Amino acid sequence: MIANLLKHLPERLSEERFDTLVDAEHVTVERIVSRGHTSPAAGWYDQPRHEWVVVLKGRGMVAFEDGEEVTLGPGDHLGIPAHRRHRVTWTDPEEDTVWLAVHYD
Amino acid sequence: MIANLLKHLPERLSEERFDTLVDAEHVTVERIVSRGHTSPAAGWYDQPRHEWVVVLKGRGMVAFEDGEEVTLGPGDHLGIPAHRRHRVTWTDPEEDTVWLAVHYD
Repeated sequence: MIANLLKHLPERLSEERFDTLVDAEHVTVERIVSRGHTSPAAGWYDQPRHEWVVVLKGRGMVAFEDGEEVTLGPGDHLGIPAHRRHRVTWTDPEEDTVWLAVHYD
Repeated sequence: MIANLLKHLPERLSEERFDTLVDAEHVTVERIVSRGHTSPAAGWYDQPRHEWVVVLKGRGMVAFEDGEEVTLGPGDHLGIPAHRRHRVTWTDPEEDTVWLAVHYD
């Protein structure tokens, strides 16, 4: 278990890093660390659960299949209903972006 | 709905401020803003749901009935099982402390 969400970030990040903080029947909370990573170029995330996400540090962009695109910086949060297709199109390549995501049904 | 969890904090805080961000059947996510506030002096929080809490800004202390006391600063997080009796014994009086709390069953 990571002790602090903003400290001791991984030095190298060949892929996005996911750490699970809460894993219960109806809810999962995870920390995601990105550094220039985006979703795979092909396809969309189509999730069976609702997601609520907040950026704690850094900056990222989330695009939806319907054309909406949102840029999130520290403190910005976003609710993504189940099955609303989306992808991360950009994260800051110069610094770590730390996301906190709550998945729930 | 508040657009950013760290901006536009209330100027005056006679009491702690609670804003609900997610309100679903099995999970509630709320932002709490404290400025020197503590739990009521008498009694303990005894919650029917589990809680996971992280400090986004500022500093606060949580004490448990069993004697454990934890100080949390930005990025520090804590899981509080249902019915583990606890209270907030101190928050920084000089700046806003912003907590994010996930209550779940």
